Amino acid sequence: MNIIDIINKTKKSQELNEEEISWLVNGYTNGDIPDYQMSAWLMAVCLNGLTEKETFALTAAMRDSGEILHLDIPFTVDKHSTGGVGDKTSLIIGPIAAACGVCMAKMSGRGLGHTGGTIDKLESIEGYRTDLSLSEFEAILKKTGFSIISQSVEFCPADKKMYALRNATGTVDSIPLICASIMSKKLAMNADCLVLDVKYGTGAFMKTKEDAEKLAVLMEKAGKSAGKKCKAVVTDMNTPLGKNIGNALEVKEAVELLQGKSKGKLYDVCIELAADLLELAGKGTNAECRKMAEDAVSSGKALGVLRETIKLQGGNEKICDDTSLLPKPLLKYEIRATKGMKILGFNCEELGMTSLLLGAGRLNKTDKIDMSAGIVMNCDVGDQLAADDIIMTLYSTVCSDFSDAAVRALNAVKFEITEKPSYT
Amino acid sequence: MNIIDIINKTKKSQELNEEEISWLVNGYTNGDIPDYQMSAWLMAVCLNGLTEKETFALTAAMRDSGEILHLDIPFTVDKHSTGGVGDKTSLIIGPIAAACGVCMAKMSGRGLGHTGGTIDKLESIEGYRTDLSLSEFEAILKKTGFSIISQSVEFCPADKKMYALRNATGTVDSIPLICASIMSKKLAMNADCLVLDVKYGTGAFMKTKEDAEKLAVLMEKAGKSAGKKCKAVVTDMNTPLGKNIGNALEVKEAVELLQGKSKGKLYDVCIELAADLLELAGKGTNAECRKMAEDAVSSGKALGVLRETIKLQGGNEKICDDTSLLPKPLLKYEIRATKGMKILGFNCEELGMTSLLLGAGRLNKTDKIDMSAGIVMNCDVGDQLAADDIIMTLYSTVCSDFSDAAVRALNAVKFEITEKPSYT
Repeated sequence: MNIIDIINKTKKSQELNEEEISWLVNGYTNGDIPDYQMSAWLMAVCLNGLTEKETFALTAAMRDSGEILHLDIPFTVDKHSTGGVGDKTSLIIGPIAAACGVCMAKMSGRGLGHTGGTIDKLESIEGYRTDLSLSEFEAILKKTGFSIISQSVEFCPADKKMYALRNATGTVDSIPLICASIMSKKLAMNADCLVLDVKYGTGAFMKTKEDAEKLAVLMEKAGKSAGKKCKAVVTDMNTPLGKNIGNALEVKEAVELLQGKSKGKLYDVCIELAADLLELAGKGTNAECRKMAEDAVSSGKALGVLRETIKLQGGNEKICDDTSLLPKPLLKYEIRATKGMKILGFNCEELGMTSLLLGAGRLNKTDKIDMSAGIVMNCDVGDQLAADDIIMTLYSTVCSDFSDAAVRALNAVKFEITEKPSYT
Repeated sequence: MNIIDIINKTKKSQELNEEEISWLVNGYTNGDIPDYQMSAWLMAVCLNGLTEKETFALTAAMRDSGEILHLDIPFTVDKHSTGGVGDKTSLIIGPIAAACGVCMAKMSGRGLGHTGGTIDKLESIEGYRTDLSLSEFEAILKKTGFSIISQSVEFCPADKKMYALRNATGTVDSIPLICASIMSKKLAMNADCLVLDVKYGTGAFMKTKEDAEKLAVLMEKAGKSAGKKCKAVVTDMNTPLGKNIGNALEVKEAVELLQGKSKGKLYDVCIELAADLLELAGKGTNAECRKMAEDAVSSGKALGVLRETIKLQGGNEKICDDTSLLPKPLLKYEIRATKGMKILGFNCEELGMTSLLLGAGRLNKTDKIDMSAGIVMNCDVGDQLAADDIIMTLYSTVCSDFSDAAVRALNAVKFEITEKPSYT
């Protein structure tokens, strides 16, 4: 095989076979194929696309470039969201699934840029360890049916290398490449059932609902073609998922939801995703599974799973009954309306960047995080605010000057003035 | 400026401005922009094209990446052919132009792969020096009006680097990139008038006449946009230009043509290109210039120019009167028809490779050349051959086994059997 022939085939929209794709991915991962040839191929993919068959072969080759997780657990489920802001659904759906008798074994990452990471969120709980060995992980899963740890071994080195190259060569926005990148990592986690939450809107990979739907269909097919039970849903990221953004703030919101204290959009999305997972796992019809998921919350069983898992991972499980034990910020700053206005929407990427500036995120991989920092949204899309109503509240312990974050926060709000200016 | 933005613009078919293109070319040439970003951009160009404005800006930026030739000669002309096999037109047109009072100052390259190089051809003349200083070059031009030397300084380093990258990334076959590559080099030579011979067919960059015409139009416009008088013509490379392929063999054919001994396709093409050059140079109408060119041959004036130039460059000028003084091969091998057949065409790339195997060319830049080696075509397209008629004759001094070359030579012939097989 020959890299020029492979590049030329994709350039001419001729289908590559499995062997060619596998040779390409392995050659690139081990360094035989240089960056400059891979980036030419990636650009050809961006402009000409890949067939479904090629996309699934690419996904499989990338999955097979590193370790594949094999747990001593007969049946596990997993979920994935495509990079949300304020997305704490894993902390809610995992305990719900486990309470319903379905084991969720999850490896997660840390946040970078405007997106948060589940591992960072969990580490806002005092004592919580995310760097468990596989045998510790399995032991907890067998006891509670739910655990989230950080990745200890290298999954999908091909994706890591290709993603860095795509970022540097303007070849990120290709649905087949995004599908292969996400699905190769999820398939390496090797759960039996997989629910995928594909977000669209500002700050998401997919800017429009149409593209998100295309990606969702492709990802679901890629999962099924790899022998997994798989369902993809599309959700709107033109508003954050829930009211809180930031590590301890998001754990607090998740706990309060599992305490049965809050309903609303976050609750609805979590129940829907949990019902989909339970249905995939064969627990009944979607309506039955929805009822089971709601009962798991209202009965307190799901919260019980979270409490037990936190305890087994070394964390202070008392936060499940008293969220004031979570890290608290020293400072707060309220963003208020100066005139009557209607809230039209939010730019979630800007909200994520605001949260980062407050100390809740990382610009570089080695940056330290302020666990207490973040944003609480005090209004929702469609709300009519009067002058002096609070739009959102910024929190931080490390950020002594809120001015940059406030500018960014205001940038994130799309509104229309509904009160006539005073000079008329 | 930002390389990702530039890549994304071309990816989205948005026009780059001159500053962006110049920044890209300079950044790549000086190493600030790595190969993997340039190759992504090149692939985007291959698939989305460039506008004419972008193509001319790219040509200018590449031209300006190195030296630009400034001769102490008031008015010069140049010609360029896009990589022919058996193409010795420069050795004929230059002397014709000079005999008509128009100075042709030419820097040429060496052959590589299936294409020959004018410098190699000239070096088959005993003593001929191609590595003249600029002042020696100018002195000869002032005396005879014609000289061809090898490139002493680095013209268009951007093209050199980009061409190597295009070769390695499947991004060669783009009309705007081919135009910029050729024209940047020709414009760095800085002649006032330029005739371009764009070839199509097997072994040429352009496989079809339509593509060759597109390239010709674009190159002519690129030349004019850079302030040059410029004309591009399209010629067929489905048959070699003339009967001889190989260094000394081609000099012999050129000399014989200037001796007035041979007419035919090569003569017609040379007269046409010379007439175009003379017309561009303001010597009269095309018909008048054609007459001048023909007279320059029939009067022996053009041969006189060649004789004088060879002498001034240190070569044995007696070859102009006795071509048997050129290097002679030790061995010959005749390819004959075994049945009656009609010749339909030739694959010139295969003929070039045959010539290379005989010792006339280089596979690698450092390979030595057998000046005597090459091919003489004994038939033409459309000819009806009988059994035992000679198709072509292979010559070599260094090649002791003709079998590989003979297989390649037969591969190069497209024919149909016209004699009924004997068993019927």
